[in-house]
Amino acid sequence: MSSPRARDLGITVGRGVPGPSNTITDVAGVRVGHRTVIERDDGDPKAVRTGVTVIMPHEGFPWSEPVYAGTHILNGYGELIGINSIREWGILESPIVLTSSLLIGKAYDATVRWIARQDGDAGESVMPCVTECDDSWLSNVLADPIDDEDVWAALEAVTTDPVEEGCVGSGTGMQCFDFKGGIGSASRILDGDQGGFTVGVLVMTNHGDREDLLIDGVRVGERLSDLMPDDHHEGSCIVVVATDAPLLPHQLKRIATRVSLGIGRMGGKGENSSGDIFIAFSTANAHAAADTGVAHLTMIPNGRINPLFYATTQATEEAMLNAMLQAETMTGANFARVYALPVDRLMAAMKKYGR
Amino acid sequence: MSSPRARDLGITVGRGVPGPSNTITDVAGVRVGHRTVIERDDGDPKAVRTGVTVIMPHEGFPWSEPVYAGTHILNGYGELIGINSIREWGILESPIVLTSSLLIGKAYDATVRWIARQDGDAGESVMPCVTECDDSWLSNVLADPIDDEDVWAALEAVTTDPVEEGCVGSGTGMQCFDFKGGIGSASRILDGDQGGFTVGVLVMTNHGDREDLLIDGVRVGERLSDLMPDDHHEGSCIVVVATDAPLLPHQLKRIATRVSLGIGRMGGKGENSSGDIFIAFSTANAHAAADTGVAHLTMIPNGRINPLFYATTQATEEAMLNAMLQAETMTGANFARVYALPVDRLMAAMKKYGR
Amino acid sequence: MSSPRARDLGITVGRGVPGPSNTITDVAGVRVGHRTVIERDDGDPKAVRTGVTVIMPHEGFPWSEPVYAGTHILNGYGELIGINSIREWGILESPIVLTSSLLIGKAYDATVRWIARQDGDAGESVMPCVTECDDSWLSNVLADPIDDEDVWAALEAVTTDPVEEGCVGSGTGMQCFDFKGGIGSASRILDGDQGGFTVGVLVMTNHGDREDLLIDGVRVGERLSDLMPDDHHEGSCIVVVATDAPLLPHQLKRIATRVSLGIGRMGGKGENSSGDIFIAFSTANAHAAADTGVAHLTMIPNGRINPLFYATTQATEEAMLNAMLQAETMTGANFARVYALPVDRLMAAMKKYGR
Amino acid sequence: MSSPRARDLGITVGRGVPGPSNTITDVAGVRVGHRTVIERDDGDPKAVRTGVTVIMPHEGFPWSEPVYAGTHILNGYGELIGINSIREWGILESPIVLTSSLLIGKAYDATVRWIARQDGDAGESVMPCVTECDDSWLSNVLADPIDDEDVWAALEAVTTDPVEEGCVGSGTGMQCFDFKGGIGSASRILDGDQGGFTVGVLVMTNHGDREDLLIDGVRVGERLSDLMPDDHHEGSCIVVVATDAPLLPHQLKRIATRVSLGIGRMGGKGENSSGDIFIAFSTANAHAAADTGVAHLTMIPNGRINPLFYATTQATEEAMLNAMLQAETMTGANFARVYALPVDRLMAAMKKYGR
Repeated sequence: MSSPRARDLGITVGRGVPGPSNTITDVAGVRVGHRTVIERDDGDPKAVRTGVTVIMPHEGFPWSEPVYAGTHILNGYGELIGINSIREWGILESPIVLTSSLLIGKAYDATVRWIARQDGDAGESVMPCVTECDDSWLSNVLADPIDDEDVWAALEAVTTDPVEEGCVGSGTGMQCFDFKGGIGSASRILDGDQGGFTVGVLVMTNHGDREDLLIDGVRVGERLSDLMPDDHHEGSCIVVVATDAPLLPHQLKRIATRVSLGIGRMGGKGENSSGDIFIAFSTANAHAAADTGVAHLTMIPNGRINPLFYATTQATEEAMLNAMLQAETMTGANFARVYALPVDRLMAAMKKYGR
Repeated sequence: MSSPRARDLGITVGRGVPGPSNTITDVAGVRVGHRTVIERDDGDPKAVRTGVTVIMPHEGFPWSEPVYAGTHILNGYGELIGINSIREWGILESPIVLTSSLLIGKAYDATVRWIARQDGDAGESVMPCVTECDDSWLSNVLADPIDDEDVWAALEAVTTDPVEEGCVGSGTGMQCFDFKGGIGSASRILDGDQGGFTVGVLVMTNHGDREDLLIDGVRVGERLSDLMPDDHHEGSCIVVVATDAPLLPHQLKRIATRVSLGIGRMGGKGENSSGDIFIAFSTANAHAAADTGVAHLTMIPNGRINPLFYATTQATEEAMLNAMLQAETMTGANFARVYALPVDRLMAAMKKYGR
Repeated sequence: MSSPRARDLGITVGRGVPGPSNTITDVAGVRVGHRTVIERDDGDPKAVRTGVTVIMPHEGFPWSEPVYAGTHILNGYGELIGINSIREWGILESPIVLTSSLLIGKAYDATVRWIARQDGDAGESVMPCVTECDDSWLSNVLADPIDDEDVWAALEAVTTDPVEEGCVGSGTGMQCFDFKGGIGSASRILDGDQGGFTVGVLVMTNHGDREDLLIDGVRVGERLSDLMPDDHHEGSCIVVVATDAPLLPHQLKRIATRVSLGIGRMGGKGENSSGDIFIAFSTANAHAAADTGVAHLTMIPNGRINPLFYATTQATEEAMLNAMLQAETMTGANFARVYALPVDRLMAAMKKYGR
Repeated sequence: MSSPRARDLGITVGRGVPGPSNTITDVAGVRVGHRTVIERDDGDPKAVRTGVTVIMPHEGFPWSEPVYAGTHILNGYGELIGINSIREWGILESPIVLTSSLLIGKAYDATVRWIARQDGDAGESVMPCVTECDDSWLSNVLADPIDDEDVWAALEAVTTDPVEEGCVGSGTGMQCFDFKGGIGSASRILDGDQGGFTVGVLVMTNHGDREDLLIDGVRVGERLSDLMPDDHHEGSCIVVVATDAPLLPHQLKRIATRVSLGIGRMGGKGENSSGDIFIAFSTANAHAAADTGVAHLTMIPNGRINPLFYATTQATEEAMLNAMLQAETMTGANFARVYALPVDRLMAAMKKYGR
């Protein structure tokens, strides 16, 4: 895509330094795959604008080498299948599969089958991690829009390449502050004296009221009151944070909690009908969680965690902004239309406010 | 079935008084439906011993008249799709669908379609509540054992009749303390001066180590060390508590927490691989949760909640015992066999210990 | 005080409308009292700069008429004595007493005695709610700086008058983003079609890194890098939200959760050593929580809660800003000094960025 | 004391093997100290029957070498000052101080002073961990019954000797199922193939209804309906679990959760006005939690945790029984009297039921 990302426009969030691709795959081993499903013409009542996105936490199979993980929920009107075992065992032992709200059953089922094909034993016992936002505004969710092959395609497509953003994968039909949104990503690399760790964030946006939108603190939403969809649609926001810093489960829960601050900075309010669900995992100690004897592991003490908090908050905000900037105007079922954030008008507003 | 229930054998749990059917449907309006799926001969590698059970919280549709609800997890290695919204909004707005672990995706998907058929608007937005235990010991879970019609059959079968127990519905392939288990139920009616409220419990058992089994405090498990399955299989335990007492969401969470005490009394320990997940809901105030103005509701103050705690703990223990007593020896895939609790030997043990 | 508040400077936070005094006492019946304890000259090693602030949730005694309440913790390295019973029973049955970290034992003890004087029975059973930030930077905390009379003075001083802000009461020795902070307050009144409810916030600030400070989105902290204290001191942030909207305990927990968004908007990050602890209570239904029969109450359905979320986030941000603007440069023990935010330089920065 | 403990009477709880002293100090390094405060004659309205008990998690100072810890609350109408930081940081960095409900302020204050005397820096920043049950039935709690020296005496008295039980320390005025209770303890040692770890439990009992009391499953309470106090007094139950098994904070939370099962087995129900608060800590990895670089630590994987769950549940039940058996009939203020469990009648009941 030729659309600019936030940094291409000179918009930086906070004082941190991004990694080489400024996406979640800057965390070594993390892989992301998309399957975009677009069917029928704009306006067709049965038009489908949806998809599946998969995050594989490292180069191997997470069910044989689970990673430590933690979660936080800002507002819980949404689903994350697998959340109980993350909280109980402190580990993530499945890929994270993102899709449309009503498709999580199908995505779960297809992921079980795919895992069973890779590893029969795991296929009988793994509970895949599946989460969602609602794209029913643009996409006919009752049209049976995905099948097993779509989920498997996303699972097979995972790559350590820079993450494709905007209207791709599970983000295809999503919005953000009443503009078009979808998948976004960003990363931060800590200074050497802070450990040199990498923090990467991937967001699937679908939340926010236009008039509340802040970009780097500028009240952009108030100045861009046109280009509204026919109806405001209160959605969700799924955020996945990856890091190579050796953090224990209770520390990863703390990291996930800081995602809320990034949402607050952009004008989100954890709306009543939103599923604002956050997962953080660490690629360090992957061997330890699965060990059968006494496992040996490493840990960053709490006293060194602040830079990781700050990196998480910043990268969340920048990832949401990238989701909007990389998305394009889309027309879906019944001529519902969600407009892309107009870059020229955004930049005019930023300039007016001294940025 | 002609098998006795606990009270038929003179085994009472605690001092409380059961309702007319001594099942969860003693709570006015609560409906339960089963779909039992048994396919192929005993021992066939593709034999299926599974099913679906549905609890409808009242006579109407919960998505138009949600009920207050709360949850507690003793051990979280299991799934309850819908748990986030119960915790966030304090309400249950879906039937509770119980099935086999790997089938929750299909059950979710089928339930979405069924709700859409009843009510198109709800079908686009309701997140059904689906939970599970693992019956892979007796049933070939990768054999694609249920389809939409099975789930719909359970949804259509709901009735206020006394609950059928043992190897039925989602309990078909489940066990309990290495004996055969499944679905069990019990109820309690409070004295008039305690408000006269009814508490009903439905359990789907799949947990426990034989040697730990206590029945009314007697160490029955130690005395019945034969009739073991080929392999111990650590499962889960789902417990649903219904009441007509007007309790708010935070109070229903307190009720759900007391289920743990009943599990403790029977010798359970919240095993590491178990999904011990509990939901409590109140049929009172159903109109209030959905109201769009200022809702008027009623509540039992905390100071009057102890009898409801005690009823919950007792009914949980008795329901688990009923699940075992009503179940029959079953042979499943690959000749795996789980034996029923032998009533004569149980009664001999009880007699020896003065009951 | 003659220092300006945020609105006096034309700085508004969000689109909401404040109440008459733009403090927490705009919520009818809420009372606030301060006791400021300043002893010895600037620089004296035994100088004391501390105090006590009390919030009484309504005109009566909360132990005979408790109010519904909920809590949220952004970062838990701090104390709120009484949090367990708020979470379990869903009610606040004590005044909220704020003071210095090491003084919570004394404040608890003195509050017990004071309650016993008002009401002997309550004095034997009430567990007062006491919370804290650390003012050891400016104040000699080991100098035994307060006694029972100081706590009682704050308890007796409660009034429905507009809240005094800045270096008063428990806020006396506190800071904010390395500037002087203390007590701040703000309020919002919802439109009539949103129910016309009032939301009031009182903050005790002691958190934040200068370089992260945002004011109405402007990166003020980066531009005001001088006037730093000798050492950065990572503190806490206590936020109390009051409303007359009839919200149940689980809804008040949701309100408390939105405080994090306000902290995020101002550049806070929930620092590792911070106690960022939030309480929300509703003055509606005060009779219901204490009732001994079946209580009758009212409730705003979840679908109407968004304006209350937004009011909470906005009022939190504005209250923190007021705490800074109303505070004055202070010199404490050992010549430690914390500077007030310079209004002229703040306004220059705001102007440069188009405000 | 010459009173028998449970095992002296042939009452064993579960199949596990106790350690040498069958108390919490079987966990290497754990130290316990008591200060018993008994003042004035039986019946004097100002009679005091109270005290302080301290648990020091290892041989050193926990603020320089904190230990991993986790908590669980069965019913939260009680106080544990310090719970927020245990949950946030996953560590215990203070002795655990147990006392009477209204004395926690004084105990906190005295502990701050004591720590400051040992270590000035810690004294300015440590938040001591203080918890309580209510002994106001036997003791005049408003008589100002303890001072700093009493708390310091308990802090100084800590020893690795077997724990003294019954009416000692903070257990002095406590009860249990309407019999006299107080402090009790027990331990379990795992088999070598389970790691050979030790689990120790210390309880301060003050909960339970007589008629619900179960001892090793026998309904003893129903058979001992006399010897009742003048009035039933609903209290609390504090349980501390120590282990040398290398468990992370999220695993210690899981351990603490299993205490509920032991309470359930004995007939407790988590009464409405009870503070049933449980803390678990591990003496392993004490260096790691305080490390300033990347810490190296060890961990038992979740798959090996079941024997520790079982040991916790058993030792909790046995410790509560020891608290009752070691306590003696006590008469306190205003001739309130709580009777000891009569051993002869207990044994007659046990015999009747085949034990």
